[in-house]
Amino acid sequence: MTIPVDIAALGARAAAMTEELGRISSAPDNLTRFFLTPEHRRAADLVARWMAEAGLGVSEDALGTVRGHWHPAGPDAPRLLIGSHIDTVANAGKYDGALGVILGILAVGAVAQAGLAPPYGVDVLAFGDEEGTRFPTTLSSSAACAGVFPPASLAATDGDGVSLAEALRAYGKDPDAIAAAAYDPSRVIAYVEAHIEQGPVLEVEGEPLGIVTAIAGASRLSVTVTGEAGHAGTVPMRLRRDALAGAAEMALAVERIARSDPHGMVATVGRMHVEPGSINVIPSRVVFTVDLRSGSDMSRREALTRFEREAHAIADNRRLGVVISAFHEVATVPCYRDLQLRLGNAVADLGHRARALPSGAGHDGQAMSKLCPVGMLFIRCRGGISHNPAEYTSPEDMGLAAAALIRFIERFQLPQRDGGTSGALT
Amino acid sequence: MTIPVDIAALGARAAAMTEELGRISSAPDNLTRFFLTPEHRRAADLVARWMAEAGLGVSEDALGTVRGHWHPAGPDAPRLLIGSHIDTVANAGKYDGALGVILGILAVGAVAQAGLAPPYGVDVLAFGDEEGTRFPTTLSSSAACAGVFPPASLAATDGDGVSLAEALRAYGKDPDAIAAAAYDPSRVIAYVEAHIEQGPVLEVEGEPLGIVTAIAGASRLSVTVTGEAGHAGTVPMRLRRDALAGAAEMALAVERIARSDPHGMVATVGRMHVEPGSINVIPSRVVFTVDLRSGSDMSRREALTRFEREAHAIADNRRLGVVISAFHEVATVPCYRDLQLRLGNAVADLGHRARALPSGAGHDGQAMSKLCPVGMLFIRCRGGISHNPAEYTSPEDMGLAAAALIRFIERFQLPQRDGGTSGALT
Repeated sequence: MTIPVDIAALGARAAAMTEELGRISSAPDNLTRFFLTPEHRRAADLVARWMAEAGLGVSEDALGTVRGHWHPAGPDAPRLLIGSHIDTVANAGKYDGALGVILGILAVGAVAQAGLAPPYGVDVLAFGDEEGTRFPTTLSSSAACAGVFPPASLAATDGDGVSLAEALRAYGKDPDAIAAAAYDPSRVIAYVEAHIEQGPVLEVEGEPLGIVTAIAGASRLSVTVTGEAGHAGTVPMRLRRDALAGAAEMALAVERIARSDPHGMVATVGRMHVEPGSINVIPSRVVFTVDLRSGSDMSRREALTRFEREAHAIADNRRLGVVISAFHEVATVPCYRDLQLRLGNAVADLGHRARALPSGAGHDGQAMSKLCPVGMLFIRCRGGISHNPAEYTSPEDMGLAAAALIRFIERFQLPQRDGGTSGALT
Repeated sequence: MTIPVDIAALGARAAAMTEELGRISSAPDNLTRFFLTPEHRRAADLVARWMAEAGLGVSEDALGTVRGHWHPAGPDAPRLLIGSHIDTVANAGKYDGALGVILGILAVGAVAQAGLAPPYGVDVLAFGDEEGTRFPTTLSSSAACAGVFPPASLAATDGDGVSLAEALRAYGKDPDAIAAAAYDPSRVIAYVEAHIEQGPVLEVEGEPLGIVTAIAGASRLSVTVTGEAGHAGTVPMRLRRDALAGAAEMALAVERIARSDPHGMVATVGRMHVEPGSINVIPSRVVFTVDLRSGSDMSRREALTRFEREAHAIADNRRLGVVISAFHEVATVPCYRDLQLRLGNAVADLGHRARALPSGAGHDGQAMSKLCPVGMLFIRCRGGISHNPAEYTSPEDMGLAAAALIRFIERFQLPQRDGGTSGALT
């Protein structure tokens, strides 16, 4: 069978749902919804109500992840997982995360309503800690589902000194139950997430949907350049050790390295702090950050090595000190080839070209990849803008994405069992 | 006659006086002494006491400038003015300004004590507003002496909303008397100031004293670069409009322009503010300052033109906006050639080479140049460090500077009168 899809109706419903969810905020005049807050509770309750209305069973795990279950072949049959997150950054847009949960509910609801009875089930997951805005943790919800939640995270504290363990208890959860939140890998087929692109590629190319090839690995560096302060008027140029001039050269080196990479590497110097920061004092110390991402871990590591070499050469040449420390490193998560093909076919079914592109942003799929194969569907967003109230995705594009997920679920062929790994994709 | 000088004794006395004056501070653990504060009052009283002890008559003008008078040829004879300032920046060193006043007192005291009776007098001036740290004014004390005090300055307010006029009244002064503080140009021969170099040139060259050729003109720019914010992971390099990358290129252009100037131009980017300043967001707006100084106004103007051209080319190339605004401009004040020679001869008398160098820092001489010829003697300071508690000048160098001023005063030849301009240098 082919489930009839009304793309306009699906889009209108997705738009109404994102509006409704987007009104749940801790801030009076913008969207801010952090992990384990009263707003998280309200959002989770709304999502649970939608799931129930869509015909799904609903549960909530020890991290507060809302799970909508559609199990036509019984609770022991293998499952597809479809999810995203309902937490936001401060002053957020309403599509980032929320839309993936909403599309999952709409798609599974449509499939369930159509009376499809495949030999597998689907769980829709609404994670609560993807942005990492409250605690210095991130992806803790999906890590718990994947069975890789790091217990040390429970001691992490938010800006008010509240630990994650305390916040979980206040939310009505039992930290001792986190281990039990892990899925059994032998029962999980794959994790699939629909998400706005958060970048401009689909818009520039005029395509509503894209298939993610990999969630780019990322390295974040803190670079400290030290020179010598001096009076801006009295120290001749040849005697200066200007930390800012050195940092400027290094920032341009980072940019040059990323630009020369043929595989779409991106590098960003997002922060730069200058000391002492006076108009008439030669800067003695500059600290800046580098965020470097690539769909190839090898390219990223080579770029880091090259940057370190160039930064030290710049520093030596200017008699500056430089200390580079990597404070964050995430490996690339390639999206599963078979899932890319299946999602691509679903998009093609709707008459669109499935543009393949990497995801430069991080996603729950990074944690879920520890559990099972991961696939991602990207949805065009206006101007590539995200993490911003101006974030926007058209109802038409949302309707297409919901339809693509419906096609993906209904055409899904349970892979052959291979040596007992029940339900594993080949 | 040649007045006998004991350089070690002069140096020890100067060191003791800088220590004593340096203890007068509004801060418990560093030296901070602002214009028209109780600490200014205490410092002025100490200076007045020293002047009186040195045999000078003492008065105070409407801006609080302490004036020590030595008038062996009577009050109507032409005068040399020797001065500097007793206000400081926050967390200052104790030599900047204070030393010039102390050396003036020591030198004039020695000349007076030696019984010299030239046909000219000397006034030692202790200005109170050179650093401009309290009010958004600067050089107001010397401007009053020079007859160029801008009345609008009286309305300027400090951080607490107190106007300069109010602060003057609270200090016991009458703003209406400022005009009367102006010297009669026909009675003034020259203004001479001894000051620590605040730069590293004399130390690098192994010379204790230097003769200033000019107080460099300065331009200060505020440069605003605007691009477009975006997610650090999702916007391909070719689609970026990164304001920080553009600003880095412009900062290096400024440096290159100054380095290529053959006359010792200096340029500094001292502040750089990055928005939004997040690790994972492409900077949308960067504001940085440029401080550009040169002993040649023509070179400085050419450099400004070149920077504007290059900054716009960089912005165009990167599809960025750039707005450059000049918010401060001071013309170069050349030191009077005849005074340079006389000061140089005084230094040579002591067996030292008088290194000629420009002053990159601003000084009261900029205002005094509106009144009369200006000359400056620089004193070596350790590491070129100034505006910092680590500021240091050795007693030996201070003793040499005092001796040079004594020689300068005693060897001074009153210039021939030319057409009624009594006392003017030729």
